[in-house]
Amino acid sequence: MKLKSVHKENLISVKEVTEIIQNQTVNFGVEEVNFQESLHRVLKENVVADRDFPPFNRVSMDGIAIKFNQFQNGKRDFKIEGIQPAGSPQLTLKNNENCIEVMTGATLPNNVDSVIPYELVTIKNGIATINLQEIKHFQNVHKKGKDRKKNDVILTENTLISSADIGVLATVGKYKVNVAKQPKVMIISTGDELVAVNENPLDCQIRRSNVYTLISLLENLNIKADNVHISDDKEKLKTTISKILNNYDVLLFSGAVSKGKFDFIPEVLNELKVEKLFHRVSQRPGKPFWFGRIASSITDNLGTKKNTVVFAFPGNPVSTYVSCLRYFQPWYKKSVGLDATNKNFAILDQDYTFKPNLTYFLQVKLTNKNGSIYATPLTGHGSGDLANLADVDGFLEIPKGKDLFLKGAVFNYISFR
Amino acid sequence: MKLKSVHKENLISVKEVTEIIQNQTVNFGVEEVNFQESLHRVLKENVVADRDFPPFNRVSMDGIAIKFNQFQNGKRDFKIEGIQPAGSPQLTLKNNENCIEVMTGATLPNNVDSVIPYELVTIKNGIATINLQEIKHFQNVHKKGKDRKKNDVILTENTLISSADIGVLATVGKYKVNVAKQPKVMIISTGDELVAVNENPLDCQIRRSNVYTLISLLENLNIKADNVHISDDKEKLKTTISKILNNYDVLLFSGAVSKGKFDFIPEVLNELKVEKLFHRVSQRPGKPFWFGRIASSITDNLGTKKNTVVFAFPGNPVSTYVSCLRYFQPWYKKSVGLDATNKNFAILDQDYTFKPNLTYFLQVKLTNKNGSIYATPLTGHGSGDLANLADVDGFLEIPKGKDLFLKGAVFNYISFR
Repeated sequence: MKLKSVHKENLISVKEVTEIIQNQTVNFGVEEVNFQESLHRVLKENVVADRDFPPFNRVSMDGIAIKFNQFQNGKRDFKIEGIQPAGSPQLTLKNNENCIEVMTGATLPNNVDSVIPYELVTIKNGIATINLQEIKHFQNVHKKGKDRKKNDVILTENTLISSADIGVLATVGKYKVNVAKQPKVMIISTGDELVAVNENPLDCQIRRSNVYTLISLLENLNIKADNVHISDDKEKLKTTISKILNNYDVLLFSGAVSKGKFDFIPEVLNELKVEKLFHRVSQRPGKPFWFGRIASSITDNLGTKKNTVVFAFPGNPVSTYVSCLRYFQPWYKKSVGLDATNKNFAILDQDYTFKPNLTYFLQVKLTNKNGSIYATPLTGHGSGDLANLADVDGFLEIPKGKDLFLKGAVFNYISFR
Repeated sequence: MKLKSVHKENLISVKEVTEIIQNQTVNFGVEEVNFQESLHRVLKENVVADRDFPPFNRVSMDGIAIKFNQFQNGKRDFKIEGIQPAGSPQLTLKNNENCIEVMTGATLPNNVDSVIPYELVTIKNGIATINLQEIKHFQNVHKKGKDRKKNDVILTENTLISSADIGVLATVGKYKVNVAKQPKVMIISTGDELVAVNENPLDCQIRRSNVYTLISLLENLNIKADNVHISDDKEKLKTTISKILNNYDVLLFSGAVSKGKFDFIPEVLNELKVEKLFHRVSQRPGKPFWFGRIASSITDNLGTKKNTVVFAFPGNPVSTYVSCLRYFQPWYKKSVGLDATNKNFAILDQDYTFKPNLTYFLQVKLTNKNGSIYATPLTGHGSGDLANLADVDGFLEIPKGKDLFLKGAVFNYISFR
């Protein structure tokens, strides 16, 4: 029993730290960008229709336009009176018994109301003959205002702008658009065992990699992060971090937060007056995760001082990686106004046992079978096994408090592909 | 019955055109880029481990390292002989009865084989006492070569490089990496009804939008496309397109492929000797889709002439959009070596009726309920209704040949979020 009592640490739960982190969102402000640069940014205004959509009774098939009641009265042959191209001012049918050739995208001419596609018409000597027994009133006319009325909201504030939304912005003439500013992020790696990627490491060294996975994860969010490496020297850490704290919205550390002799980060952050909000989480990987905040000298648009937020992730590559996905990304999403709830669920495709009383981020392959997402565990060799990530699609979040998880059980997942 | 016979067009099926397009892939070649610029690019070489992973017996917990058999023989108190930091040359335990303090990421010293974390140790006056009844041989040691052996392939050719893979590239020192070149793409819009986004359209005009949705869709694939607008003037089209054909791998047209009087594109492409592979597909939206190819003056690495491929999409905004997602994207994927099969399936969450004998790209909201993806139809007002795309997540591909689709049926979907 001694073993157990010694093991018992006062770890904070994943649920609790999620709440703490989500309560520390920062407003990065708003900026105006060209609509073409707004893809994957977060809209910070409602976008309204500048006019009705369609803005006119719009012809939706190439063909001829006639008066419906002429057809109803049995008429099938119509003399062609003119052509209405797209983009040309609206014509008017002069003789009710005639027709006008109309092009897709054109304004429906005055005095006609129904369009018969060329495929259903024979044209000879300037006479169009309709090869149909019946037609519908206003067929092939996309009526003015049918999709949206002038001043209707088409895109709402806090929308993540998609490729389709770019088209909407173009259509309503929003060539300048307000979006959430991106945070200024500094990624800091520590660890004297690390050498540059283009160096040949000694036997006891490895190359820097966490900083690049973090940069890439942020690139996926359209954030361009800065990065720096600081050696495991307490004074150097203190001086450098002190400068950084004043100039960034977020600091992401990788390493030096555990119980090692050179794990100076919690101590240094404490001395720099960064308020610790938690340290050590009941999860695997990533147990030594440290999180805090400090009032920054940066002010927002209204002059209010913002916080600088510090995510200090453990240095094992899988720990850093999953922690950024699981904690930084939703924090960022909530900060810019997006829904940060994880709505991705997958079904465990086999029984799985995990004994420690910790939330476990299980590496999985994801497969869509008939519309259902199945997760196949591919565990790897622990938080140091970066290479295993190359073979999986994401992490299944298995809660603590149980050790056997049955095939068919459903859990949240985070995909990184 | 006349109605039906008139309607009967010789339309080619979605299945057939998919095959035709997938047989027209183009090899864009290979280029070497900095690994930091390779995110979301396609790897064009196998990447191997430059040494074992881990490269040494790696300490995976901060604590003390001892000889296992000392513990087995009942010893619990170990004099601390030294400290082994990460990144320092490997120490050797001199006295078998002593221990060495070891840090996460450090090389396991010589002459020790098991690591006890600090949490389970009491240290006093230079003596570490282990508070345990049992330990495991090699516990908390991530053994050399356990994850990968030197020269093992870690990343295979034709991998879409993820944020995790960037870390793998860094770790093995691949600071330059071969990736598939991106295609040179020209997006061409036509239509005299179109004005610039920052202009105020006349009543009969609308703003250009398709070109921007296409640019954005390609941006999602990391492709920077050029674009040009050409007015509906046959000679001008011919001159301009002729120049473009010789300088691009792909042309994407939006508009002017249907039966209108000013739909010059098929005619112009024919006169420019672009070989038509099909025109008009049994689908909605996007029926007038035209596709072809021409031997280009561009040669590949081996001096072989490549084809320039032409996707001429119909000009209605939803037609252009879904056609690019459904046809250009898989063609691009296969061209660069990725699996182009759509493995995304969703479950229709209500009965849906669609009468025309056409493959239908139904606009849907997608919801993950307990690990299953449900598709809720949100039809909109046809292919001109761009605004409806702002409210949906993607398209469910409903096959032709039936008109009632029951709740619970499973179909491929394409998501654009």
